[in-house]
Amino acid sequence: MLSNKLLNRMVLLGNMFTFKIKHKEEHCQARTGIITTPHGKIHTPAFIPVATQATVKALTPQQIQEIGFEAVLCNTYHLYLRPGPNLVKKMGGLQKFMSWHKPTFTDSGGFQVFSLKEGLCEVDEEGVDFKSFIDASKHRFTPEVSMQVQRKLGADLIFAFDQCLEISADHDTTKRSLARTHAWAVRSLKEFKRLNRDQSQALYGIVQGGRFLDLREESAKFIASLDFDAIGIGSIFGDPKEESRQLVEHTVKFLPENKTKHLLGIGAVEDLFTYVELGLDTFDCVLPTRLARVGYIFIHPKSGGNIKNKFRYRITHAEFKEDKSPLDQHCDCYVCKNFTRSYIRYLFKSDELLFYTLTTYHNLHFFYRLMQEIREGIEKDQFLKLKKKWMR
Amino acid sequence: MLSNKLLNRMVLLGNMFTFKIKHKEEHCQARTGIITTPHGKIHTPAFIPVATQATVKALTPQQIQEIGFEAVLCNTYHLYLRPGPNLVKKMGGLQKFMSWHKPTFTDSGGFQVFSLKEGLCEVDEEGVDFKSFIDASKHRFTPEVSMQVQRKLGADLIFAFDQCLEISADHDTTKRSLARTHAWAVRSLKEFKRLNRDQSQALYGIVQGGRFLDLREESAKFIASLDFDAIGIGSIFGDPKEESRQLVEHTVKFLPENKTKHLLGIGAVEDLFTYVELGLDTFDCVLPTRLARVGYIFIHPKSGGNIKNKFRYRITHAEFKEDKSPLDQHCDCYVCKNFTRSYIRYLFKSDELLFYTLTTYHNLHFFYRLMQEIREGIEKDQFLKLKKKWMR
Repeated sequence: MLSNKLLNRMVLLGNMFTFKIKHKEEHCQARTGIITTPHGKIHTPAFIPVATQATVKALTPQQIQEIGFEAVLCNTYHLYLRPGPNLVKKMGGLQKFMSWHKPTFTDSGGFQVFSLKEGLCEVDEEGVDFKSFIDASKHRFTPEVSMQVQRKLGADLIFAFDQCLEISADHDTTKRSLARTHAWAVRSLKEFKRLNRDQSQALYGIVQGGRFLDLREESAKFIASLDFDAIGIGSIFGDPKEESRQLVEHTVKFLPENKTKHLLGIGAVEDLFTYVELGLDTFDCVLPTRLARVGYIFIHPKSGGNIKNKFRYRITHAEFKEDKSPLDQHCDCYVCKNFTRSYIRYLFKSDELLFYTLTTYHNLHFFYRLMQEIREGIEKDQFLKLKKKWMR
Repeated sequence: MLSNKLLNRMVLLGNMFTFKIKHKEEHCQARTGIITTPHGKIHTPAFIPVATQATVKALTPQQIQEIGFEAVLCNTYHLYLRPGPNLVKKMGGLQKFMSWHKPTFTDSGGFQVFSLKEGLCEVDEEGVDFKSFIDASKHRFTPEVSMQVQRKLGADLIFAFDQCLEISADHDTTKRSLARTHAWAVRSLKEFKRLNRDQSQALYGIVQGGRFLDLREESAKFIASLDFDAIGIGSIFGDPKEESRQLVEHTVKFLPENKTKHLLGIGAVEDLFTYVELGLDTFDCVLPTRLARVGYIFIHPKSGGNIKNKFRYRITHAEFKEDKSPLDQHCDCYVCKNFTRSYIRYLFKSDELLFYTLTTYHNLHFFYRLMQEIREGIEKDQFLKLKKKWMR
């Protein structure tokens, strides 16, 4: 972990945050790269596990690191409500608080606030009023508040405050919302610059624009014109597949190549291939961890994973009662080297806590290894071949 | 892990189970020793963590081993009902099933069956009828069944089937029950010898006798007269303290010195000192793990642990909200080296699974280190000095 003194010296030297493209694949826009932060490097394309409440559910930070991950993403909305940004700041910031001494992202809080049911969230031009999921107390986020909260949380990589819409929003609604998101982007950036004198954080601007190519284009151009360190693309839900792909494909045309790009909330295996191909660098998603806790196990194509079964099966089924094989016979993670499907299914039936740890560990390892295969594929200019192998 | 071939060869060589006294303390009966089993050695005196359902709740076997433990104890009653001894046997036995490749104990199932409420358990001379905690289905344990079940589970160290009584049982009731326990001891031993031709398991006889010195003496003499590999003492609840101590003190007078002795279900810090002083070698108890899950944290005397506070405090209290210190400032476990009280209390408030892992890890580490201090104390003939230091 870097001392404050060393951090200050690094600020003087500049270049605390850089994004370097290592290799561009010949046949598409896929690329490998390195994001450098004060807490270390992230090799891209990378999947970023979600540590919503400052913990990847059921795993120690030691286990996350053992799998190989170089970064996690925490949710500002949750941490703002509990334990609160002031407490996290007092404890030395998120990394120290959760004992994760590598790069950390926080989202802006926007997505969670705008996901609240009607009546729990009300938006105006300045910001948004919402109620706490813990005690229904009233709160207000503005771009400035989001920047201040994320400053106190102290992640390396943070996001501008944006408005997220339902996938069904029409053109008029989306257009009005986009104007607001753009105004908020400007205000986020201004407040960020005021707070970030020590350059200890980097800010992602977020492209919105709903389901509309013209609005995505407008948003990409606008966000690209501002002085953000990096760019996120929001409100892409992965479905419908072809529409989502077209939206992102059209968006990235208007984004600068040299800025690193994050696709928010995406993590299905198929989608990772789709968006790496379009030049996206990082992805966060609760899919592997959330599905692990209800018994879905990800498996490699060598072990029968394919688009149709979504590269997963459910370990809770009776057919695995006496199955001596590991969760995935072609996986070399701690769980697959040590435990059988029979034992893990039994832990589920017995309501044992170890079930969550083992399934989460394996699923995250699956995603880590997938991205590693993808990075290796790109560097050999064989990404499309790899994609074909996985997608057949 | 030993292969079957190697195991068979060891059987031919004999001495798969030995107990060797390393050092006898000058000033009392405390001793250090080594129990050798086909899966490795246990340095005594030792605390044996309880893995009721073939898992120490919230920890991986890797973490248990990292702490330093050399053995765990599983509950036959639970494993008999789920997943069942046949499944465990098919999976290669308990050690392989749970991926714990070190010595393993199973209890006889008696304690759990006799702890069931009235109507769920009915005893006769031959055995006991009981209902499942899972689906209320009817089952029957006899000494023979307990031996057969423990054989299939395949732990290294197993226990004879005994009747456990409530602490309030009178002399007549206890006397009648003791006659039954002794008859069951003979039957357990007979069935064990029939099953254990390959000498892969060792059997503990259990001394009972309730609250009565004369019955404890009778039981100790009887159990000592039989060909058990080792001896357990049952139905000592630790309270009332002085009465419990006197019962065990009187019991051990009639037990052979060279057999290793296990005190069932005991694990309060004070009690460990009391019974190590009387020459007991091993102890199992759910105390550190069960209390961990509701937020009780064990601390060393250097950090304020004492008899009055039972060497523990509750991390859930508001006073720890902003506490940057570790759970125990004089502890060097993974948890204390990496996390603050503030973070761990926050995990509790946020219903995060990591809370159980961290508190369980620390508490078990506390008990491991305590027994390590005790072993070192004995070897320097300073056990009583150490006890005084802890008990003041």
